[in-house]
This record gives sequence, structure tokens and C-alpha cells, in this order.
Amino acid sequence: MEPGLAEIEAARGRLDGVARVTPVYRSETLSQLVGRELYLKAENLQRTGSFKIRGAYNRISQLGPEERAAGVVAASAGNHGQAVAWAAREVGARARVFMPQDAPMAKVEATRGYGAEIVLTGPALEEALDAARAYVAETGATFVHPFEDPLVVAGQGTIGLEIAEQVAEAETVVIPIGGGGLASGIALALRAVRPGLRIVGVRAAGTLPGGSGYTIADGIAVKQPGELTSGILERVLDDVVAVDDEEISEAMVLVLERTKLVVEGAGAVGVAAMLARRVGGSGTAVALLSGGNIDATLLISVIRHGLSVAGRYLVVRTRVGDRPGQLAQLLTLIGAERVNVVEVKHQRESADVPVGETGVELTLLTRDPAHCDEILALLERWGYPARVL
Amino acid sequence: MEPGLAEIEAARGRLDGVARVTPVYRSETLSQLVGRELYLKAENLQRTGSFKIRGAYNRISQLGPEERAAGVVAASAGNHGQAVAWAAREVGARARVFMPQDAPMAKVEATRGYGAEIVLTGPALEEALDAARAYVAETGATFVHPFEDPLVVAGQGTIGLEIAEQVAEAETVVIPIGGGGLASGIALALRAVRPGLRIVGVRAAGTLPGGSGYTIADGIAVKQPGELTSGILERVLDDVVAVDDEEISEAMVLVLERTKLVVEGAGAVGVAAMLARRVGGSGTAVALLSGGNIDATLLISVIRHGLSVAGRYLVVRTRVGDRPGQLAQLLTLIGAERVNVVEVKHQRESADVPVGETGVELTLLTRDPAHCDEILALLERWGYPARVL
Repeated sequence: MEPGLAEIEAARGRLDGVARVTPVYRSETLSQLVGRELYLKAENLQRTGSFKIRGAYNRISQLGPEERAAGVVAASAGNHGQAVAWAAREVGARARVFMPQDAPMAKVEATRGYGAEIVLTGPALEEALDAARAYVAETGATFVHPFEDPLVVAGQGTIGLEIAEQVAEAETVVIPIGGGGLASGIALALRAVRPGLRIVGVRAAGTLPGGSGYTIADGIAVKQPGELTSGILERVLDDVVAVDDEEISEAMVLVLERTKLVVEGAGAVGVAAMLARRVGGSGTAVALLSGGNIDATLLISVIRHGLSVAGRYLVVRTRVGDRPGQLAQLLTLIGAERVNVVEVKHQRESADVPVGETGVELTLLTRDPAHCDEILALLERWGYPARVL
Repeated sequence: MEPGLAEIEAARGRLDGVARVTPVYRSETLSQLVGRELYLKAENLQRTGSFKIRGAYNRISQLGPEERAAGVVAASAGNHGQAVAWAAREVGARARVFMPQDAPMAKVEATRGYGAEIVLTGPALEEALDAARAYVAETGATFVHPFEDPLVVAGQGTIGLEIAEQVAEAETVVIPIGGGGLASGIALALRAVRPGLRIVGVRAAGTLPGGSGYTIADGIAVKQPGELTSGILERVLDDVVAVDDEEISEAMVLVLERTKLVVEGAGAVGVAAMLARRVGGSGTAVALLSGGNIDATLLISVIRHGLSVAGRYLVVRTRVGDRPGQLAQLLTLIGAERVNVVEVKHQRESADVPVGETGVELTLLTRDPAHCDEILALLERWGYPARVL
């Protein structure tokens, strides 16, 4: 069942002209921050915004004429659903995608945009899976599993062949792990063509046993890799490490600002693990940016959070006298320090503000945590003791 | 003085292995929205995050040994400063960059990171220019102009050669215009190798005569192209159109969400002009994404704004009874409609809210303007008349 190099190379042939050979970028700033050469494999620039079309297309293109006529089915709240919809359209098959009722609107619309029929089911993915299985039993359509399928694993493995060619000097490769299809495919390919490479998988801490159960890296929020993929991963990975949501959001902001690439949470875990110096090995590393599908609204909160964690955003609450010119005076002092004020909120009535004073909430742009401390000390000295929010 | 194809090809030779040949992407969604095939030339993925290193390197690499030893100078608040710093380091010359005192911190840090000496001057760019000229007079260093220089224009022109090869079927090319160096270089190259192409320049409406004077496309906030570039542009462009900041921010959000690329305001004007159907011509079009250098904090406000303009974000103010469970009841009604609530603000005391009621500010995720209207009607029907903020 386990695909070998021949199957991965066959997948590559099928994907030629269908999937993009995504570019690889070296980021100078990120390399400095992680203390070694770091390349990013930009699979977020893949069609549909994630690597998932490689596996889905490799699977769906192998259907016989009768299977193709019966259509394909997927259960997914995200990238896999989009990929199945897209790949089915490429080969001219109908696709039906079962999604949880609260799947992000942008993903529902995108999947529909690729021509799939969407069925919204209950709140959890399990209900979408049940509905998909029932539909398959009823209609004879083909269920496309997101990772427990040798053709899917082989499709994702084509990324490994590309990395080996694009970054000849790579010594370490870092790959996100959710269901494990991506990591097993890439690792199988690399073990075949570059046996000596260090290969490290990265999971989201929130979904590990004992974790909060939640992670912003929703693309890899799978509690357990599959049987097929677990077997492969145990054998081929050198190490598996974890990163938490703070680390992931900081990595997302860094990638966004320094490389101009939008990555979703799952796509940033490799960079996060490198930044946390949790990957080990030495020499040139390649981190896989697995996807970039994130709602703009969620992106806003992630950027905000990432900036706060990095000390580049300071939100404080203080008080000024409730007389004309008092707020202006505070802002003038801050301006003289060349600190940018992003937002000012005036709160006239509030339980914790004495009569004759007004609460003020300031959002300031700062350089780093030391700069934040400096500004807090200045506010105190000027007579505006402030509380960090 | 005006560079020809020979000079642009010479520049390409010098830039080989130095600048990236940036990729070109076709976006399915954007093509649908603009009603014709649309490709994006992703110069935001260029080293330093913008096209500017092409011109700067072409200029600086041509300095003689003595000039190189005397160093180079630039006055810039943005991409040009970073590019000169970067290019100088590549050839081993010292760079001094004069910047306005309120230049975004991220750009100051990036420029310093490339090894330049930074001098912060007065509030406006004019003061940085004066200081740069005084320094040049004093030291004999070479001033690198952002656009009034044949070598700089030839360097930017290399993008035109790449577009001609990467999108053989292109019939229209859309280019941002600030000082005009980019547009004249690309247009000269294209006129030479593809005489029949339609070439359209795009300016930011805010900086046109009669405009507000402000634009979020700060990279092209130049009041007047130079003498050299104006002469070229008048002859080689088929048309010049303008887009406003609303259109630019909507385009930025679309590019971000659909292609996973971060573009700055100036980088999005071509897509904005295509979306507004202001470009004319027919057939396949290529829009140049000139750069991606935007502060994460500014990006947040642009995304917010772009989402509001697109009707995908609805902020309303309404009132609920000031008794336990009243807010929960409203949120339950909204939840039953499967509308996502991003933020809830409770405002107990406020002049416009009667005693016994509480002001509530809700931020909701919506699909489009029609969906916004639908929700407002529902709120009214439920007895929560709401005001859009």
C-alpha cells in the first residue's frame, strides 16, 4: 500500500502542467533570526492556495470512466474540500463536498466557486464525514480521503522531489503534520533521493494530548494521523516537535512582513519551529509553507496578536484631566518621543475613573518589548500611570 | 539620455543572478472579476520587497572604483532607500540614506539591516533631499536618483523583457506610475519587443491635481514624474488612468485573499484599475504588482477598510434592555441566522441610550452589501433598530 519513488514520480508526471512547481525563497531576515540558511517552499502559492490539489488530483485522475461518471465526495472544512472540487473539475467529474455548518464563508464560497455541490451538515467534521459515507453507500460515488490513500500520499510526495532539485544544499527539511499525508509523502520522496537529509515534522501543541484542543493552525487540527501515514512517519522522520499558537502567530506575521507571503496557521508551523530552535541539525534548512488559506478577518486578529507578542504594539489605559487640552497635552508628549499613535479611545464614564478625569485607551506602535517598557516608564514620569491591556 | 533596448538588455545581463526573475500568476477569481484573463507579475516577491533594486543595482554597479569608494546616497522614505542600501552592499560600497523623521519604523529598520547608515531629517521628503544634496556636495558621494536616471530606467525596464517572455499572449500591460521610472522602463522595453501591446499607466487619484493630496499608495505619491520620464511616458503609453484609495484597498484585500500575496498600495493600483474596468483594450492583461512593503499595522486597517467596502464586515450600534439575558437573547437570534459575530462592545452609559437600556456595538461577518441589508432588516424586525457605524 505504501507508495515508493516510482509512484511519486508517476504522480509528478500526472501533475505536470496541472499543479504549479511552486517557487522557493531564501529570506535574509528569517535566516538571520533562525541562525542558519532558511529557504521557504511556497506551496501557499499553489492553485487553490494549498498543496492539497497534488494528492487530490493524483487520486481523482486515476478513476476509471465509470467511477468518474459517479462523481467524487469529500468531507472537509477547508483545503482538502477546495482541492477535491478543483481536481474533479479538471478531470470533468462531479464533486460533492460535505462541510460543517460553520465552515468559514470564504472557504465555502471558494469550494462552490470550483464547481462543487456543497452540503452543510452539523457543527463538527464527524457529521460531515458520516453524511459523506452515507452518500457514498447510496450513490457509488468515490470518497477521496485527505490522507489515508497511497495515491494521495504519492501526490503530496512530489513536493519532496521539487525540494531536492530546488535546494541542492538542503540538510534539513521541516514539514507540518496533521493527518500525515503531506509529511509522509515528502519524507518518502526525500529518503529515496536524498537519504542523508534530516526530516522533522511539526505539530500544533494545541491538538496534542493534554493540549487545549484548539489551534489557529486549523489545517493540521487532526487529533491522530492515519494508520497508513503513522506507519510511514514513525519510520521516516528523524524527529517530531510541537509549536504553540503564540509561536505560530509570530511566525505568520514575520513571513507576511518579510517575504510578502500570506500563510495560514498550519503553513507557518515549520518557520515557528525554526524560530524556536526546536528543529535540530545544522546547515541549510527548508521549511514548507503548506498553504495560505486564511480568512482576512482571522488574519487581522493574528497580525494584531503577533505584533503584541513581538512588543510592536502596546495598548495601555491611563487617565487625563477632563478639561480642554488635557488629552492634546499627553499626545504632544508622546509625539515628541516620535512614537506613533494608532488609536485613541476616550471613555468619559467608567467606574474606575474619578470624577474630573477621563479614561483614555491608547494603542501605540513600538519597536520591541524594551521600547514598551521605556514608554511605560515615560508615561509614569509624566504623571500618566498606565495599565497595559 | 533615453535608454534603448540595448541598455535594457545590458541591465538584464548585470542583474542576472542578482535580482530575482519574479514569477507571474494567473488568478482564476480575479480573471472572473475583471472579465478577461488577468496575470499578475509578482515583483513584490523581488529582493527587498519591490522592483527598485533593478534600477538601483544597474546604476550602482556601473560606478568606477573611485566613485564606489566615495559611497552612494539616497533620499527616500521607502522602497528606493532599501534598494540603494541593498545594491550598495552587493557591490561593496557604503550607502547613506536620508529619511524623513517619521518614516515607518519597519522601513528604517529594514534599510539599516541592509547595512546603510540612516540619517533622519525633518518631517517632509524635501528636507531629506536637501540634506542628501548637501552631503553629496561635501563628500563627493554619488546621489542615486529614484527615477531621473537612464540607468535606473533601464534597470526597471528589465521587467518588461520578462513579461514579454512569461506571458506570450499578453495584449495589455498595466503599470503603476509614481515618478515614472518603472513605467517608462517597462514601456520602452515592451515597445521594442512587442510593438502592438496596449500599455496603460495607473496613478493614485489622491495625488492628482485637485485630489486630497493623500493616498495609501505611498510608493507612488510623487506629485510629478521627472523630466526624463515624462518625456518617455507621453510618447509610449496608450493611456493613463487613476484609481482612488477605496478601490486600491479593495484590490489589496482581493490580491491578499485570492493569491496569498501581500501588496502595498502602489502595488495594487493596476489590479484596482482592472477591477474598475478603466484599462480598456481586450484580451489577456498583465498587472504589475510593484511591491509588497507595507507595515503590518497599516495592513490591518487596509484589510478592515477593504472588507467594509466589500460589505463583508458590518459594524452596527443598537440597544438591548439592561437586564440579565438580554444581550444573550440578541446574540442567539443572530447565531440562529449563522452570522458570525467578530466583536461585541457593551456601552453602559452613553448620552443616546435611555436609562434601562444598554448600548451594544456589534461587528458581524457578512457576505456582501445585500447580506448587510438583510441583517439590518432582521434586527429591525426583532426589535433592535440598528445604526450602521
